[in-house]
Amino acid sequence: MFLFVLRLISFLLAIVAFTFVLPVLCGLWYGEIQTVFCFIIPFVVCMLIAAVMWFVGKSQKTKQLSSRGGYILVAIAWIMTCFLGAVPLFLSGTMESFTDVFFESVSGFSTTGATVLSDVESLPHCINFWRMQMHWLGGMGIIVLTVALLPLLGVGGFQLIKAETTGPDKGKITPKIATTAKILWFIYFGMTLLETFLLVLCGMPFWDALAHSFSTLGTGGFSSKNSSIGFYNSPSIEWICCIFMLLSGINFSLYFLIITGKIKEVFKNTELKAYLLLLFASIAIVSVVILPQYKDLLTSIRLAAFQVVTIVTTTGFATADFTNWVSPAQFIIFLLMFVGGCSGSTGGGFKVIRWVVLGKQASNEIRHILHPHGVFTIRINNEPGRKDLVFSVAAFGFLYAVLVFLTTFVSTFGGLDLISAFTAALSMVGNIGPGFGLVGPSENYGFLVPFVKWWYCFAMLAGRLELYTLILFFFPTFWKK
Amino acid sequence: MFLFVLRLISFLLAIVAFTFVLPVLCGLWYGEIQTVFCFIIPFVVCMLIAAVMWFVGKSQKTKQLSSRGGYILVAIAWIMTCFLGAVPLFLSGTMESFTDVFFESVSGFSTTGATVLSDVESLPHCINFWRMQMHWLGGMGIIVLTVALLPLLGVGGFQLIKAETTGPDKGKITPKIATTAKILWFIYFGMTLLETFLLVLCGMPFWDALAHSFSTLGTGGFSSKNSSIGFYNSPSIEWICCIFMLLSGINFSLYFLIITGKIKEVFKNTELKAYLLLLFASIAIVSVVILPQYKDLLTSIRLAAFQVVTIVTTTGFATADFTNWVSPAQFIIFLLMFVGGCSGSTGGGFKVIRWVVLGKQASNEIRHILHPHGVFTIRINNEPGRKDLVFSVAAFGFLYAVLVFLTTFVSTFGGLDLISAFTAALSMVGNIGPGFGLVGPSENYGFLVPFVKWWYCFAMLAGRLELYTLILFFFPTFWKK
Repeated sequence: MFLFVLRLISFLLAIVAFTFVLPVLCGLWYGEIQTVFCFIIPFVVCMLIAAVMWFVGKSQKTKQLSSRGGYILVAIAWIMTCFLGAVPLFLSGTMESFTDVFFESVSGFSTTGATVLSDVESLPHCINFWRMQMHWLGGMGIIVLTVALLPLLGVGGFQLIKAETTGPDKGKITPKIATTAKILWFIYFGMTLLETFLLVLCGMPFWDALAHSFSTLGTGGFSSKNSSIGFYNSPSIEWICCIFMLLSGINFSLYFLIITGKIKEVFKNTELKAYLLLLFASIAIVSVVILPQYKDLLTSIRLAAFQVVTIVTTTGFATADFTNWVSPAQFIIFLLMFVGGCSGSTGGGFKVIRWVVLGKQASNEIRHILHPHGVFTIRINNEPGRKDLVFSVAAFGFLYAVLVFLTTFVSTFGGLDLISAFTAALSMVGNIGPGFGLVGPSENYGFLVPFVKWWYCFAMLAGRLELYTLILFFFPTFWKK
Repeated sequence: MFLFVLRLISFLLAIVAFTFVLPVLCGLWYGEIQTVFCFIIPFVVCMLIAAVMWFVGKSQKTKQLSSRGGYILVAIAWIMTCFLGAVPLFLSGTMESFTDVFFESVSGFSTTGATVLSDVESLPHCINFWRMQMHWLGGMGIIVLTVALLPLLGVGGFQLIKAETTGPDKGKITPKIATTAKILWFIYFGMTLLETFLLVLCGMPFWDALAHSFSTLGTGGFSSKNSSIGFYNSPSIEWICCIFMLLSGINFSLYFLIITGKIKEVFKNTELKAYLLLLFASIAIVSVVILPQYKDLLTSIRLAAFQVVTIVTTTGFATADFTNWVSPAQFIIFLLMFVGGCSGSTGGGFKVIRWVVLGKQASNEIRHILHPHGVFTIRINNEPGRKDLVFSVAAFGFLYAVLVFLTTFVSTFGGLDLISAFTAALSMVGNIGPGFGLVGPSENYGFLVPFVKWWYCFAMLAGRLELYTLILFFFPTFWKK
C-alpha cells in the first residue's frame, strides 16, 4: 500500500516537474538565461527523486485504494505540488521570505489568485508565466491529470477524483475513470488554445496570451500586469476573457455532452440555468446602478459583466475597482462571493448547485407547511434528486461557514478591520482572490503577518479540495483502525 | 370562520389596549397629564371597537382553525398590534412622521430595540415606559398571552402558538395549549418582578426598574437613557441585567421543568449546553483581547460579558461601544449576530439549536465519508432527533440568508456602506438592535430614508415570527383553494 502510494506520487512529481518545460521555453524566448536555471535545477532534482521512487515502488501491484488512503494521497499530492511550485519562485529571489513564495504557490495551484506582490511587472517573464501556469494545473486538477496520463488505477481512482473535483454530486462522464479524466483534460486543453488564439488575434503577445488563458481557464486570477486585464485597455480582450471565465465556471462534463451531440441534456441542467440567471440578473443590476459613475451604458455593461463574472467564477481578474462603486453594486459583488461557480467547473466557492438544493428544499418546506400530508421531493435536472443531497449540502454549508468564520477570526489578529477580514476569508475559502477594504482588487496580500498567510494557505487549499480532503485529518475517527 | 377570527381579534385588541393602564399610571406618577391622554383616547376607542366586534362574532362557534387561517390570524394580529402600539407615540407628537412611530412600534413588539430617536431622555416618562413595555408583550408573544387568557381555542390553538413561538421543534409543556400558555406567562411575569425588585434594591427608581425589566425579559433593548444601561454606571445593575438577559435567552419550558423538579432533564438539554458554552467561550476571548484597552481584568470581564450576552440574546442594551474595540473582539460580536438565543426563549436570531443541528449533521457526514456503510442519526437531548429536522433547518437557513441579503441590498440604496448595511440586516432580521458602522450601538436608525425603514419593519416582523408566518403570503400556493 505504502509503496503503491509512493509510486503514484513519484509519477505526479514527474508530471509537475515536466510542466517546467513551458516556463523554461518562455524564459529562453525572452533571454532570461539566469532565471531559467531556477526551473532546470528543480526539474533535474525532481526527475531523479521520481525515478528512484518509481523503481522502489515498482514491485507493488495493489490497484485498490481505501477511502482513507485516497484522502491521504490527495492531500499529500497537493501539499507536495505547492512546495514544488514554490521552488522556482524562491530560487529566482523575487520574493523575500519562504512564507511569501509558498503563499504565492498555494494561491496559484488553488486558483485563488491572491498575490503578495505589489509590482508583478518587475518579475521575469518566465516567473510570471509559471505563476499563471499553476492556475491551469490546479484548475482542472493535478490528480485528474495524473489519472488521465497513468492508467494505473482501478475503481480506487474514482475515489481520488472525488477528493479533488468539486460539487456535491460528482458525475462520471464514462464508467472508466482514466477515459473521463482524458476527456476533461482534452476539452480544457482545447479551450485554452482557442482563447490563446483569440487573444493573439486581438494583439496580445503570444506568451502573455497563453499565460492569461491559463489563468482564465483555471479561474485563477494572476496576471503579469499590475492592473490585471485592465492594462490592455481593450474591450475585445476584456470580452474574450469575460466569456472564457464564464465558460470555465460551467461544469465541464456539459461540454462533453455538447461534443457528443446531447445538447438537450445540457438545457435540462438545473445548475446551468441557475448560474446563467444569476449572472445576467447581477450584470443587469450592476450595469444600471454604476451607470451614473461611467455615463456610458456600454462601458457600464462591459465593466459590470467583467467584474460580476470574475467574482462568481472565483477568478479575480480586474478591469475596475469595485470598492469604488456605489453601495448597491458593491453588495452584488459581496453577495456573489457567497456563491461561486458550478460543480465540476474549475471555479471555486460554495457552488451554485448547493444554493439551488437549499432553495428547492425551502420551497418544499413551504409546501409542506401548507399541505402537511403531502410528500415533496427535490427535482434536479428534471429528475428526483438523491434523498441525502440536502443532508450533505447542509453539512457542507456548516463546515464552509465555520471555516470562513475561523479564517475571519485569524485575520482580525493580523490587523484587518471587520469587512476586510470577512471578505478576505470569503475570498480565501472560495478561491476568489480580491476582497473589500484592505484586500480590495487594487491591493495585495503582502502586508499580512506570516501566521495569517500560513492560515490562508490552509484555507485556500481546504477550499480548493472542498474541505473534507483537508479537514478529515483533524478528526480522531480518521486515525482509528 | 371569518366571524370567529373577528372575535379572537377583538379580544386581542382589548388585551393590548388594556395594557395601556401601566403607562397611564406611570404618566400620572410623573404628572404628565397631557401625555396620559395619548393612551386614554386610543384605549377608549379600542375598547368600543373590540366590544362591537366581540358581539358581532359571538354567534360563531367554530373552534378549529385551519393551518392557513392560523397564519393569517397571527399575521393580522401582529400588524394590528404594531399599529395600535404606534398610536400613543404618534399622538404624543414625539416623532416627526408616521413612518418613524411605526418603525419604533415594530421595533418594540418584535423586541428589536432599534430606535429612530437620538435623544430618548427628552421623551415623557410614560412614552418611554410604553416603548419598553412593547418589548415585554412582544417577547413572550401576544398570541400566547391571548391564548392564556382566552380558553376559547381547541386543537387549533397550538397552530397559532406555533406560528408565533420560535425554534424548529416547538415543545408542548402540557397537552392543553391554554395551560401551557398560562405557565409560560406566569414564569415570565415572576422573573420580571424579580428583576424589578433587584434593580430597585440597587437604587434604580421603580418605574425605570420595571421598564428595564420589561426590556430585559423581552430581550428588546430599548432604554429610557441615551447611553442605555451604561447611564447608571453601576456594576451591580449591569450584572443583574446581564444575568436576566442570559436567562431570557434560554428556553422558558426549561424553567417549567425546574419548577416541577425535573432538573435532570434540564442538564440533558443539548441547546442549553451549546448556548452556555458559546457564551462563556465568547466572554473569555473578548475579555482577554479587550484587556489592553481597559487595563483592568474585572472591568474587561464585565463589559465583555454584558456586550456578548446582549448580542447573543438579541437584546441590544449597551454599556460599551463594541465598534471601538479591537478587531478580534468586534469579530466575536459579529459572529454572535448570526447565532441568536435558544428556541422557545424571548431571544431572536437564527437560534442556537439550528446551528447545533447543522453541526451534528456535519459530524455525521464526516463519519459517513469514513464509514460509507454506517448509519448515523442526530441525537438531540440524548434522544434521536426527528429525521426531517435537518430538512427544516436547511430550508429555514436558506430563507433566513435570503432575507438578510435582500435587506442588505435594500439598505445599500439608503446610503449605507457595506458593513453597516450587512450588520443592519443581521440586526433587523435577528431582532438584535445595533449593528456596526453607521448603525453602531452609539448611533440610531433615524437618518434612514422612509422606504428603508418600511422594509426594516417587514424584516423585523418576519424575523420575530420566524419568517414563514409573514412570507407564506407571497407564495401563490398559499392562496390556492
